[in-house]
Amino acid sequence: MNETMVTVVGNVATTPVFRELPSGPVARFRLAVTARYFDAVQNVWTDGHTNFFTVWARRGLGSNVQGSLAIGEPVIVQGKLKVRDEERGGQHWTSADIDATTIGHDLSRGTAAFRRVLKANAALTDTYAGAGAGAGAGAGAGAAAREPLPEPEPVG
Amino acid sequence: MNETMVTVVGNVATTPVFRELPSGPVARFRLAVTARYFDAVQNVWTDGHTNFFTVWARRGLGSNVQGSLAIGEPVIVQGKLKVRDEERGGQHWTSADIDATTIGHDLSRGTAAFRRVLKANAALTDTYAGAGAGAGAGAGAGAAAREPLPEPEPVG
Amino acid sequence: MNETMVTVVGNVATTPVFRELPSGPVARFRLAVTARYFDAVQNVWTDGHTNFFTVWARRGLGSNVQGSLAIGEPVIVQGKLKVRDEERGGQHWTSADIDATTIGHDLSRGTAAFRRVLKANAALTDTYAGAGAGAGAGAGAGAAAREPLPEPEPVG
Amino acid sequence: MNETMVTVVGNVATTPVFRELPSGPVARFRLAVTARYFDAVQNVWTDGHTNFFTVWARRGLGSNVQGSLAIGEPVIVQGKLKVRDEERGGQHWTSADIDATTIGHDLSRGTAAFRRVLKANAALTDTYAGAGAGAGAGAGAGAAAREPLPEPEPVG
Repeated sequence: MNETMVTVVGNVATTPVFRELPSGPVARFRLAVTARYFDAVQNVWTDGHTNFFTVWARRGLGSNVQGSLAIGEPVIVQGKLKVRDEERGGQHWTSADIDATTIGHDLSRGTAAFRRVLKANAALTDTYAGAGAGAGAGAGAGAAAREPLPEPEPVG
Repeated sequence: MNETMVTVVGNVATTPVFRELPSGPVARFRLAVTARYFDAVQNVWTDGHTNFFTVWARRGLGSNVQGSLAIGEPVIVQGKLKVRDEERGGQHWTSADIDATTIGHDLSRGTAAFRRVLKANAALTDTYAGAGAGAGAGAGAGAAAREPLPEPEPVG
Repeated sequence: MNETMVTVVGNVATTPVFRELPSGPVARFRLAVTARYFDAVQNVWTDGHTNFFTVWARRGLGSNVQGSLAIGEPVIVQGKLKVRDEERGGQHWTSADIDATTIGHDLSRGTAAFRRVLKANAALTDTYAGAGAGAGAGAGAGAAAREPLPEPEPVG
Repeated sequence: MNETMVTVVGNVATTPVFRELPSGPVARFRLAVTARYFDAVQNVWTDGHTNFFTVWARRGLGSNVQGSLAIGEPVIVQGKLKVRDEERGGQHWTSADIDATTIGHDLSRGTAAFRRVLKANAALTDTYAGAGAGAGAGAGAGAAAREPLPEPEPVG
């Protein structure tokens, strides 16, 4: 309750850094979100203020980010905003983090070939079952062909 | 002002239909958005209510949707919600449409290889210029390799 | 997960209807949300499409809506969107409901005098305690003076 | 385009500061937004992370905030998020500001009596006209009775 949810559209500003932690995989990158205005006088779009966020992707999303995102790519990110204040070495630091729930390439800027990653741990998350369900996170990151869906997916 | 902006995460429920209109390319598909709850008693996720929307993607986004999305794929969609009431043949119809500003594959469900589409009509939208800028919407939809970025992108 | 959360700004279009159900108080009203555009040629704001929603306010929010909102008043509403399809008497009906989490008068349109409602059932919701905590929902709806806060509130 | 819009629900953490600038009235206050979790084991709500924002309200919204909001009151705020980095006196500062489009008291926490403020400058913003339209921003802040609406309002 009272989470600060945000959806932002911007560009990956640093190469995602990936780590395997005891709590699971985590990927992290900086995101640049630049507001754009239409200048009616000059008839062109111009840049407004740029917000920078540190985006955190955990578990399956972290693995897939690692296998999918490169610096400069346009993305849409949804997640919980966390503004943090810290005192470190006598200095005051604030950071704006987004704990991402979903990330996707921005299809208004280009095309994307998607490959579903089946989850081994069906009980925790979903109802995938059967042989081959253990293909694993991260598999097929660079794959070219769009995999045919084995069956219609029942849920969002 | 006072637009009803929404961000939804769901699954493409019908094959996108694409048309070239005088006003530009338009792609349209149905989107199923199913809420999910964690049932603490049974220790499983269960489905809640499903919202269905008709998603409209116009211009470059429409072309890229046509080249990227297939039925069953998980997506995040941001756009303007339009609830419409109509009287047709004595019947009362309501529809819930989303006029999409951005669509992306949901990377919490799989990986994606992105390919930037350069825009021919720089004046209207952006500052891309030079030879090769006319590569065109829809090109490279099925492309395998992630294209190296020619230069850092200045804007969101 | 995957709830369709919306925040809309509009006007109360019907007098709120209030009922005490076994599950608690519920208030319901229609909300009109009209997009507004600045017409640069004519130098005026003009109306765009109007979305209509049925807003549901439950428990304490329902009681307070009943004590606070009148037809025509401008409000901001946050909640879960539910688009429903039904077959009734051979007719197909769709409705767009918002299950509200928060509602407030739109202070860009006027001023408001607020009066906190203390909750009797502290265990379920909050940490209010002590004599007088049972003042009750709905009390003070028409009160003029802003009540001094008994103590700083600890939480959001 | 690509604005970072947020809707947050929290408490006014500092008394609003009001100034008349050449560009119009501006009110400013700090907002505390505390996430709340239901602890199923202990059967109580507990606090999560608190985000602090500086909220800016301009023009009519600024005047009405000045006449309506007091420290400790619960509010819903919608606006554009601006994360800023600055170098001042050798120190690095970041702030998270919200340029508010709408603010309202949170009716899940109490009741509110609203009083519409008519706008003198109809051409710029709306279609109010006639005698008495110049009642002015800020008027009636402490008023008790809910003013009858002179006529149904046509727009959001």
